[in-house]
Parts: sequence; C-alpha cells; structure tokens
Amino acid sequence: MPTIISISDPEDPRIEAYRSVRERDLVGRQGHFIAEGEVVLRVLLASRHQPVSLLLADKRLDGLRALLQVLDDGVPVYTAPQPIIDGIAGFPLHRGILALGRRAPPVDPAQLLAACPPRALVVVLSAIANHDNMGGLFRNAAAFGADAVLLDAQCCDPLYRKAIRVSVGGCLKVPFARIEAGTDIPALLASQGFTAIALSPSAETPLSRAPRPERTALLFGAEGPGLPADLLARTQTVGIPMTGGFDSLNVATTSGIALYHFTRD
Amino acid sequence: MPTIISISDPEDPRIEAYRSVRERDLVGRQGHFIAEGEVVLRVLLASRHQPVSLLLADKRLDGLRALLQVLDDGVPVYTAPQPIIDGIAGFPLHRGILALGRRAPPVDPAQLLAACPPRALVVVLSAIANHDNMGGLFRNAAAFGADAVLLDAQCCDPLYRKAIRVSVGGCLKVPFARIEAGTDIPALLASQGFTAIALSPSAETPLSRAPRPERTALLFGAEGPGLPADLLARTQTVGIPMTGGFDSLNVATTSGIALYHFTRD
Repeated sequence: MPTIISISDPEDPRIEAYRSVRERDLVGRQGHFIAEGEVVLRVLLASRHQPVSLLLADKRLDGLRALLQVLDDGVPVYTAPQPIIDGIAGFPLHRGILALGRRAPPVDPAQLLAACPPRALVVVLSAIANHDNMGGLFRNAAAFGADAVLLDAQCCDPLYRKAIRVSVGGCLKVPFARIEAGTDIPALLASQGFTAIALSPSAETPLSRAPRPERTALLFGAEGPGLPADLLARTQTVGIPMTGGFDSLNVATTSGIALYHFTRD
Repeated sequence: MPTIISISDPEDPRIEAYRSVRERDLVGRQGHFIAEGEVVLRVLLASRHQPVSLLLADKRLDGLRALLQVLDDGVPVYTAPQPIIDGIAGFPLHRGILALGRRAPPVDPAQLLAACPPRALVVVLSAIANHDNMGGLFRNAAAFGADAVLLDAQCCDPLYRKAIRVSVGGCLKVPFARIEAGTDIPALLASQGFTAIALSPSAETPLSRAPRPERTALLFGAEGPGLPADLLARTQTVGIPMTGGFDSLNVATTSGIALYHFTRD
C-alpha cells in the first residue's frame, strides 16, 4: 500500500517536480517524465518504466485505490484539492492525475531488434521532430501491436509530456531505442533479419500490393522532407495513392494505414 | 491584376480582420474565415469560397505574383514588413501569408448527396468537437478523394482557422453540408442511394472484410462516446481490430484507414 500524503501548500517542496509542468517541458527532466490521466497512469504502472511519485486531486483518490495497490511502499502519492493541483501544475488539470516516472535504462537498437519475436513488426522513425506526430505514431504502434520503435538521432523525445499524452500511453508501452547518428540503418535492420519497407509519397509500388515479410521494419520520415534519399535508395519503397495532387497524408495517419495493411487478416 | 496596398501602421483599420487572429477565433467571424500559408491559399483560390483580401509579408510578394493573377480586381492584397505582420496577427507568422475568405452559401445535405457521382464516397461526422480532429478528417477526405462531408449539429466548424490549417486546405476543398438537429441520418443517406457503414471499435465485422457499396457513406463519431447507439443499430458496423486492449485509434487516423480500405485497388 502506498503512502498517501495530503498537500495543502502549493509551494510545498515535496511536489516540486510537478510545478509549472508546461514550462518544465522546455528544459528537459534528466531521466524523468510526466504522465497525465488515468489511462496513461495504468499504462505506466504496467510498463518497464518506474513510477517515482503521484499527484492526485482529492476527488480522484477513491476511484484509484485498487490501482494504487500495485505501487511500492516507497512511492508517495500526494493528494490535494483541485484548486491547489491547478496552482501547482500552472493550468487547469481537469483530469486531476499526474505521475512522475523514471525512464527505463536505454536499450541498444540491435539488442532490441534481436529480442523481437520471429514474425516481428517494428517501426523506424527518421527526423520526427513534432511531439504530436511522435505521440500519434506511438499510439498507432501500440494499437497495432508493433514490437518496437527505433528512432534516429533527429527524432524528438517520445517521453516528452505532450507526446506521451497524445499517444494515450503508447510511448510508455512500446519498447523503443535510439539509433546513434551515423549508423547504417538498412545494415542494422538487415543484420537482425528485418526487411525494410519505406513509406514514400513518390514510390511506384502501392502499399496495397506489398506482401508482408517475415520480419518487417516500416520506415517513416517527417512530412515535407520525407526520408533521406540514401535511405530510400537502399530499401523497398511503397506509397499510398492519393487523389488529384493533394498534399501528402499526415505521418501518423500514414503509419496507421501502413500498420493496418501489414497486420490485417 | 489585384490591387497591392502597402501597410506601414499595424493599427491601420483596413487590416482589422487580421488583427489578433487567435483571439478572434473564439468569437466567430460571421460568414468569414482565415486561411494561412501558401498551400492553403492555393486551395482557397481554386475552391467554391471567395477570397475577400490577402495580407502578405513583403518578402512573399514576388514568389506569389503568378498566383495572384487569378484574383479579381476588387480583392485587395495588403503587404507589410514581417514585424508589422507579426504585430497585426498577434504572434510570429513565419509563413507570412494570411487570407480572409467568405464562405460559400450553405448547401442542403440531400442536394449535396444527390449531386455526387454514381460511385460516390462520402464521410458523415457525428459530434466531432475537436478542431485538430476535424482538420485531420478533412485532410484525409481530400487525400482520398471523398466527394462530400456531412456534419451533424454537434460538430465544430470546419472553417475555424485551426481546422483549415490542420487540413492543409482540405476543409476548403471538400464540399460539406450541415445536417439539422433531429434529422434521421440513415434515412437521409438511404434516400440518396447511399449504404451507411459506421466505424465502431465494438463492431464484429473487421473493416478488411467489408466490400465497397456502389454509393458509400462512412460514419465516424467522437473518440470516447463513439457514434450514438440508435445510429449504430441502423447501420452496418465495421471495426479495426487492435492489440491487447489498447485504447481505440484517433478518429482522424481511423478515417484514413477506412478511406484507404474503400479506395485502394
């Protein structure tokens, strides 16, 4: 059973990590992250990451008691009236649930790929700098059961607060690893038996005609620039045909369509 | 050739419609809307809506001269240095392009459906209140060539600035009509020969097994509540199978997957 600690002073130093969460996002959290809301909290508690503490609005405590049983004794659960919570967070926190988490230790990309099941499906992201898109990509990866996500050096952090929120916890659920700058990504994937398939608006082969390889790596680049040319030249490319020269799809939507295609019966 | 008018005073009453665009969004624009950026401007100029005026950063004028040829003489093009533009808009407007548009007259939903081609595909939205989702839905509708979008009375306005921006102009491109509260939506669709297919996480039939009807109406509801039960009871429902009890997909992503399924070869 966790320790419940009632907070009455918004300046209480024990809840320092939750103060002005939006501004804090901008400076980074040195190995920690913030999760919001009940759904994301449930994902966190079932994930490889560790809860450090919780901050709950008083009104939420009763509904969460069963869930809180899984917390270690050393994880404090701070509670406060809703107005105090809003004052600490710096904005109206309607859901009344915040958690501070500690990242699991980083994983080597080759080891993560090697640990995937024989018929694995992984997502590889290049230069995704927008946290909404990162969250959407992880939400889809989780929804379609992707085994892992690999991020190149130009990708933003999936454990940024907004990315976690948009992913509905997908960023905490799907294992991910960062690929060092300069790594030969097609060679890395091939070394673990993965066939790389890059989504590209300019591809001649439509997605609907692409069979699923036994071990599949789906590559997505940022909207606009797309994937680097040297990467496209060394992978199988597929596209989603569109109407009348309209701008390409959002990258998270593209990932949803590609994951749907490769996982449907 | 349009009239180019240089603005040097941010308080100039002629550019009143562009002042503090974010705050203005909150009060509505009585038949007008704001479009941002070159891609969306191009869609606007090719759409059924009318440009009223433009406000451009000086640096953008030369690159747009060819495009501006299509403007009527009566449409003023205001130009100003970037810092003046930022001061008028109330935030840094990096793209330096704003347009004020006038909505095309509202269309009757039955007439819009009747005007669709024989093998039409339309999107019907229920209670989509989030402008990001509305924009994403229209972006996908445009990308996959949907013939129209119908909105129930609980949907937000697709011509809200943020929805237009997220849609990359799709909100201006795809014809839409508002369904009056109390309308029998399945009966409306059936009266024009459309088969209604509702996307629902609880559906037993997977999307991948759903054949395309000649005239197809795809129904999407808000995340969380989903489509109203009385509507689901009177339509064919299909779902997108997901892994391990993970939260349902984002509604815009769902629309992308469903539109892909019904338009692929």
